This record gives sequence, structure tokens and C-alpha cells, in this order.
Amino acid sequence: MSELKIGDEASLSRTVTEADIILFSGVSGDINPMHLDEEYAKQTIFKGRIAHGMIACSYLTAVLANKLPGPGSIYAGQEFKFLAPVRIGDTVTAKVEVVEIIEAKNRVKLRTYCINQNGTLLVDGKATLLPPK
Amino acid sequence: MSELKIGDEASLSRTVTEADIILFSGVSGDINPMHLDEEYAKQTIFKGRIAHGMIACSYLTAVLANKLPGPGSIYAGQEFKFLAPVRIGDTVTAKVEVVEIIEAKNRVKLRTYCINQNGTLLVDGKATLLPPK
Amino acid sequence: MSELKIGDEASLSRTVTEADIILFSGVSGDINPMHLDEEYAKQTIFKGRIAHGMIACSYLTAVLANKLPGPGSIYAGQEFKFLAPVRIGDTVTAKVEVVEIIEAKNRVKLRTYCINQNGTLLVDGKATLLPPK
Amino acid sequence: MSELKIGDEASLSRTVTEADIILFSGVSGDINPMHLDEEYAKQTIFKGRIAHGMIACSYLTAVLANKLPGPGSIYAGQEFKFLAPVRIGDTVTAKVEVVEIIEAKNRVKLRTYCINQNGTLLVDGKATLLPPK
Repeated sequence: MSELKIGDEASLSRTVTEADIILFSGVSGDINPMHLDEEYAKQTIFKGRIAHGMIACSYLTAVLANKLPGPGSIYAGQEFKFLAPVRIGDTVTAKVEVVEIIEAKNRVKLRTYCINQNGTLLVDGKATLLPPK
Repeated sequence: MSELKIGDEASLSRTVTEADIILFSGVSGDINPMHLDEEYAKQTIFKGRIAHGMIACSYLTAVLANKLPGPGSIYAGQEFKFLAPVRIGDTVTAKVEVVEIIEAKNRVKLRTYCINQNGTLLVDGKATLLPPK
Repeated sequence: MSELKIGDEASLSRTVTEADIILFSGVSGDINPMHLDEEYAKQTIFKGRIAHGMIACSYLTAVLANKLPGPGSIYAGQEFKFLAPVRIGDTVTAKVEVVEIIEAKNRVKLRTYCINQNGTLLVDGKATLLPPK
Repeated sequence: MSELKIGDEASLSRTVTEADIILFSGVSGDINPMHLDEEYAKQTIFKGRIAHGMIACSYLTAVLANKLPGPGSIYAGQEFKFLAPVRIGDTVTAKVEVVEIIEAKNRVKLRTYCINQNGTLLVDGKATLLPPK
């Protein structure tokens, strides 16, 4: 915990593929036609299929788990706001930044957000973790 | 929106498998040894591998997308607290319940929570959606 | 062993998809942005995402396991040189050819190589197996 | 390149699951009954299904790609000897160690090997990479 400082940052970037959508549908059971049915999705305000919002969120959990605070952390809570859709072929950058350290309770809060290749904010929120001691 | 009432409920149940963990690792990039390395996980307070917390959360998004409010909804926000670990072989029931309807903004809030086969509360939180009009 | 002759050949061909890359990332844990992040990969000498080199190699193991020498063989060793990148959508032909038979030690050596749809040599090397007696 | 030193090491550990075997069979096309058919495998000297040897090898590529030399490296060659079988449920530790640095050609050679939870050497060999400059 002592190494974590407010302002510490980490990120990862991935291009969202159709395969991610199929695999996430299989794991989650979320078979919303918005993700799977191009003809349906074309009729909606999104004008085509979009990725499950939780795919972008899952990249945030990868940054938290792999990098900051990293392995050994316990994930206590998460808030997300979904601000813009993720499309197939978009490259999503998931970023986390330490915004609060609560030494007494061994907790750290991080802003967690995703942007696409155009800089559009897709998802924003906050995670609470117990970092390894 | 008019059909939605406070207290409306929906759920789905799934048994979490090793395959879910491998596939979710591939989609998310979350390769935390807590999920993938039994020898490591045995040394931790969890005494063995646990599933990614977001797998249980993804079942909640499946209920929201498939059932209540169902297809055509727009997912605006989500909060989760992670309360207990999900183990391989656990059967998770993901439940959603309408707790607030904000007609003026066309928004509905649902409690979203998961329990395992023993009734242990695993994840709890709240979702905000724009249901189809 | 007596049926194997120097010059015996077998092959298989497959088109590499994004799904293969996501699944291989999950199985291996190899989350190199060269495979997963188009924006990053565009900046490199490869000018876009490439497949994990081991995916093409895995097609070679499929030919060895399924066809020549086939089921019942024991895989003793393998050498690979990676000569050119494999891109999403490329069709890879994996070929194996018996180049040496060591009766006394019940071993067979095969050249193992992959080419793409343009005839470019992608991977080249040699496998050593103990064929079924 | 200048930061790499002979003796530098990195590793990762994973428990091999049935899901890994199914997914690797799907990606590679290697449908050897030794990996997929328990009744067949019980009759062999292995007395049960074993994992594809390349699954353990793929963990080595994950260490090379993710950690040492890490992202930006180009994979030039690999040799493997398969020394002992990997069984479902085994935890494999994949280790890499810098053994030679060839500054003039911007190449680094690493010993690459896997052991299981009992310390048995499963795979051993050497990788050649061009690290990022």
C-alpha cells in the first residue's frame, strides 16, 4: 500500500472484435440483438451492432488486476456510467488512476474510464480495492 | 415504460465453469493468477481459484438485456459491491428487481444482485437503464 | 514405423481469424498489444495487428498429431524459425515432410513449415517424434 | 536492449484446465485422441488424457511477450524438447532466463522451460528474440 500514490496511473488498449462479442455472449448469456443482430441494430439509434458495455468494463478490471494495484488486490466495489457506445473495430483504452487512499481501512479508490481511438469517453466510474499489504 | 412496476423481478442461474474463466481471461485480458493458478490461489485467503467478479456481474447484464427491462433498453449506469467470492462449480443466480421509476427522465433503477447455491450474497448493487418507450 | 518413408508429406490449411487470436490469448495469457491493439500495431513495422506466431505453429502440431505420423506418436522436440508475420484473414498452409528416419531409436524427423496464400514462407523448422510402433 | 542482462528472469504460472484443451483443439485443429478421448488415453502409457504440449509452450510465449523481453520484441526462433506430459489440473510454471546477448545483431537468447507443481521439468528449450531498441 505504501507504494501507491495519488495520481498513479496505468492503462491498456485493445481493439474490440466480433469474436469478443460472441465469446462474451457465451460467457454472460447476454444475447441482446443490439450486439448480435445487425439488421435489428441498424434500425436503432446506434445504426449498427455495438459491443456489450461490460466488455470495455472488463478491460478496466484487467488493468486493476494486472497492473494497478495489481495481483493480490481484492476488488471491493465498482461504479460505471456508460456514456457512448463501443463499436466493432474500435480500439478502447482503459485507464485507471489512483484518486484516494484510505490507509486506515486499507482501501484505495481509482477513477476507471475508457476512451476510444477518437478520444471519446465511453465509460467512466470509480473502483474500490484492497491492495496487497 | 408504462408496463414496468416497482417490485417487478427477473433472474437467471448459471453454473460457473473453468471454461468461463479461460474465455473471460481472453476477452478481458485479466490474467490475475487468482483466477488461473491453483497453486498461487491456495496460498491466499480464498484457498483456491476464484472466478473473475465480473463474470457474475455479466449474468446481471444478461437479465437486464434479455428480460427486464429487456431488448431495446439503454444501459446508463451500474454499481457493484463484491461481497463474497465465486468458485468454480458454484451456481450463481443473478436477480434484478425494479426499485425506482423516474418517468420524467425515462429512467428505471433496479437492484441487481447475485447469490450462490447456498444463498450467500456475492454481488449487490444497482443498475440504471432507459427502457424502450 | 515401417510405413513411414522419407519424402512422405501431409498438410492442412486454415484461415486465421480474430476469434483465433482472442481464444489463443485466453489459453496462453499472451496479451501482447501487437495481437490485440490495432492502433498500437499500426505504429509498428508490421503496420497492423498480427497473429501470435504460435497459432501457425499449432497447425503444424495438428498435422503431426492427426495425419503424419498421426495418433499414437509421441512428440519429442520442435524447432521453429519465424520468418514472416501472419495477418488476420491469411490462409495458412501447414506442411510436414519426413526428412530422416532413425530406426534404432524409433525416431522420425520432419521438416515443418507454413506458407500463406501468396506462397510466403512464414515459419520453418523441424519436429522430432516417436511414431507408434 | 541495454537494460537486459544475462541472468534476468521472468515467469508465470497457470493451472491447465479441460477448457484450455478444448479451446486449443479448436484453434489448432489438433484433435489427437490423447487429448480428447479419456477411454483411448487410459490405454496408453500416459494412463489418461494429457494436454497438448504446445499449451505449456504457449505460456512461455506469454512470458516472452508480456514480461521479458516484453512488448515490442520480435520473435525470431524457438526450440523445444518435450520431456514429461502435462495433465489436466497440473499447475505449470513457465520460466525464461536471458542466457546470451548478441549486441551486434540486436538479438537475445533465453532459456525457456516449464515445470509442474512437483518440480518436474516438462519442456525445455531456447528462444531467440529481437528486443525493442
